[in-house]
Amino acid sequence: MSVELVECMGSDLAIVNAARVSYAKHSDSMSDADKGLVGYLARNRHGTPFEMVQFKFRVKVPIGVAREWQRHRVGSFNEVSTRYVEMEPEFYLPDNDAVRGQVGKPGHYQMVTLEPAQSSMVRVMMNGAYQSAYEAYKNLLAYGVAKELARNVLPLALLTEFIWSVNLRSLFNFLSLRTHDTALLEIRREACAVEDLIRPVVPVAHEAWVAGGRVSL
Amino acid sequence: MSVELVECMGSDLAIVNAARVSYAKHSDSMSDADKGLVGYLARNRHGTPFEMVQFKFRVKVPIGVAREWQRHRVGSFNEVSTRYVEMEPEFYLPDNDAVRGQVGKPGHYQMVTLEPAQSSMVRVMMNGAYQSAYEAYKNLLAYGVAKELARNVLPLALLTEFIWSVNLRSLFNFLSLRTHDTALLEIRREACAVEDLIRPVVPVAHEAWVAGGRVSL
Amino acid sequence: MSVELVECMGSDLAIVNAARVSYAKHSDSMSDADKGLVGYLARNRHGTPFEMVQFKFRVKVPIGVAREWQRHRVGSFNEVSTRYVEMEPEFYLPDNDAVRGQVGKPGHYQMVTLEPAQSSMVRVMMNGAYQSAYEAYKNLLAYGVAKELARNVLPLALLTEFIWSVNLRSLFNFLSLRTHDTALLEIRREACAVEDLIRPVVPVAHEAWVAGGRVSL
Amino acid sequence: MSVELVECMGSDLAIVNAARVSYAKHSDSMSDADKGLVGYLARNRHGTPFEMVQFKFRVKVPIGVAREWQRHRVGSFNEVSTRYVEMEPEFYLPDNDAVRGQVGKPGHYQMVTLEPAQSSMVRVMMNGAYQSAYEAYKNLLAYGVAKELARNVLPLALLTEFIWSVNLRSLFNFLSLRTHDTALLEIRREACAVEDLIRPVVPVAHEAWVAGGRVSL
Repeated sequence: MSVELVECMGSDLAIVNAARVSYAKHSDSMSDADKGLVGYLARNRHGTPFEMVQFKFRVKVPIGVAREWQRHRVGSFNEVSTRYVEMEPEFYLPDNDAVRGQVGKPGHYQMVTLEPAQSSMVRVMMNGAYQSAYEAYKNLLAYGVAKELARNVLPLALLTEFIWSVNLRSLFNFLSLRTHDTALLEIRREACAVEDLIRPVVPVAHEAWVAGGRVSL
Repeated sequence: MSVELVECMGSDLAIVNAARVSYAKHSDSMSDADKGLVGYLARNRHGTPFEMVQFKFRVKVPIGVAREWQRHRVGSFNEVSTRYVEMEPEFYLPDNDAVRGQVGKPGHYQMVTLEPAQSSMVRVMMNGAYQSAYEAYKNLLAYGVAKELARNVLPLALLTEFIWSVNLRSLFNFLSLRTHDTALLEIRREACAVEDLIRPVVPVAHEAWVAGGRVSL
Repeated sequence: MSVELVECMGSDLAIVNAARVSYAKHSDSMSDADKGLVGYLARNRHGTPFEMVQFKFRVKVPIGVAREWQRHRVGSFNEVSTRYVEMEPEFYLPDNDAVRGQVGKPGHYQMVTLEPAQSSMVRVMMNGAYQSAYEAYKNLLAYGVAKELARNVLPLALLTEFIWSVNLRSLFNFLSLRTHDTALLEIRREACAVEDLIRPVVPVAHEAWVAGGRVSL
Repeated sequence: MSVELVECMGSDLAIVNAARVSYAKHSDSMSDADKGLVGYLARNRHGTPFEMVQFKFRVKVPIGVAREWQRHRVGSFNEVSTRYVEMEPEFYLPDNDAVRGQVGKPGHYQMVTLEPAQSSMVRVMMNGAYQSAYEAYKNLLAYGVAKELARNVLPLALLTEFIWSVNLRSLFNFLSLRTHDTALLEIRREACAVEDLIRPVVPVAHEAWVAGGRVSL
């Protein structure tokens, strides 16, 4: 799994100037008053000025994670096509720490760690399943089956890659949900990586969003 | 695979009255002039009045198909969660006619049918892969692994189920792309089923859209 | 000003069943557990099931209010066209209670009531301005000027009419912002009218949203 | 009226690489094959790669024009607030060439030019109406009336200012509708100015969109 910041547009100042246009004002550099304004916007959930910063990422995650990611509709996606591309045998295999059991009821699940020996065994089982599936995929292709049909046997652990363009307001919504401790571990890790990438670009806005409780704006 | 129309709001008349509000007019029943107006809207791609009709479907398709479906961002989705639910062993297995090979280059693929004996063999291979994957899934669950982790071994052929709420304009866009003969066979079949379900609800709008070339409005 | 509920799709049960599909469950009627589920969704800001209820309104408000209304992008609008229609002389004139002064700074304005005699005078001044503007409009039309150009002299108080289709999640966002006591008085009144219209349709969801603090979901 | 390009993200190459990710490919500079690909995308209305280019504009237009502009929902807006700001007396007054009459029926209007003497007279009438309205506005403010209430007398010709962030796909949709010869003259002029600003940023994409018939993608 990996996430890379490809390019971005705007900065803390872009947020300030989008907000200041409401008052027919403009700032050329961040003042203390400007920092205060960003805090005010975040606390009061005035979200639109945060839409004025745009990010583009290249993301590589398993299909199961990509499905959660792409449920965020405000944003743009272009993804590798399993109809057009013969996929490489790259699968998500959890490291020992990420192997976990589950107790409790839906809405109130708790994750529990397994014994190291168990975790190793789980990794062997998962990897075995991936290799079998990939072998079936290759056999189907060798047999002349269309890629778009053969892909049916590939597992949700298969790594996929996509470009994602998203504005900061929508990104805060993503981070709010996907860095939360009830989020799926695998998306949480990548969401934290996303957060690390955008923090230096919009340090004032990020700090204000954190101070405001990391909620959707 | 299956698709069911759960409920809907509006009709041809709702489209007419949304358009007529522009002229400060209102119709109580469809006249010939109203039919002409719908044709005019479709031919000239005045899309917004078509947004005034809303449909809700229950859809059951393989995950690979659901991924294409959910790329349509204007609409609402709620889907069975593989984090919360132990999935049943229900997989998409193509019937003999749907087993196909592929020739040509990306963007210009052509699908070719296989010999009946080959198709049968392909079905055996795919089904075998599904059963192995599901067995691995059950083993992982029995071993205490969390459902959200064990699902990684499940194949893209696994059937998933979701509710989809969508307006008619967005639906025409979906049908334009997904009933097209370059669309994936499996989504094409379900998109045609969707089209059969909405045609009786908005017969005038549907006919106008077809006459206009089945394009996005 | 007026707002009318034209039609709707779904109910509290639609929300429940959209949420229950995540757990591969279905309810045929609202149980206490279902009510609890709706409360859980609202408290935890699981917004998507609320998108499964759709409303359509006919709204008549001044252009200045319509501009705020139509900044809500998730939803559909069709509006009377001042390019196509010769507008009637219908203008928003505040009643005596709605005439107010303003003290304080941007972001911290406070509205203050005026003396009754002042309010009456304000109403006379506003009405006079409307009548002058409308007379100029009619003169321009009589002179042969295109409606789309003549409209430039019409005031923001001019009443406009539009159809609005919106789902319940987006509507809660609208109500959260527009019934708030910092919202413009005129939109607040109509937003409260909207709330009165939807409350009987989704009583459980509405109560849960109120209990959750009337925030965006 | 004016429109200014504030900043942008991406280029023709960003479109190419968003499309090429589908095939697990990447380009470091535009080749002839890349140009061909952009043409293919435009001709076949594969719109999503065009979403990967983002623009931000500062726009100053009359409120009547801003209302049409802001009906484009895919994009972000921050606008000067007539609740918070005492507006300057800046109004749209058509030059002589832009003063026009109207003949024909809705949907089939034709605009006709007026005699120079008539045009001058129209300009005098419009300007007089603006000045009266602004005087009423100032009188109301002097009387202590809140800005948010006093604005009701201001005409649709009043200049407003907003920041607009939009991706190239949505922008092509905007240009398709708003540079069309049936569009309102005033928005057509500004849309053409927008087109002049983005053409040098994405020359290949722009040329492909023109060759494809200037339609929505």
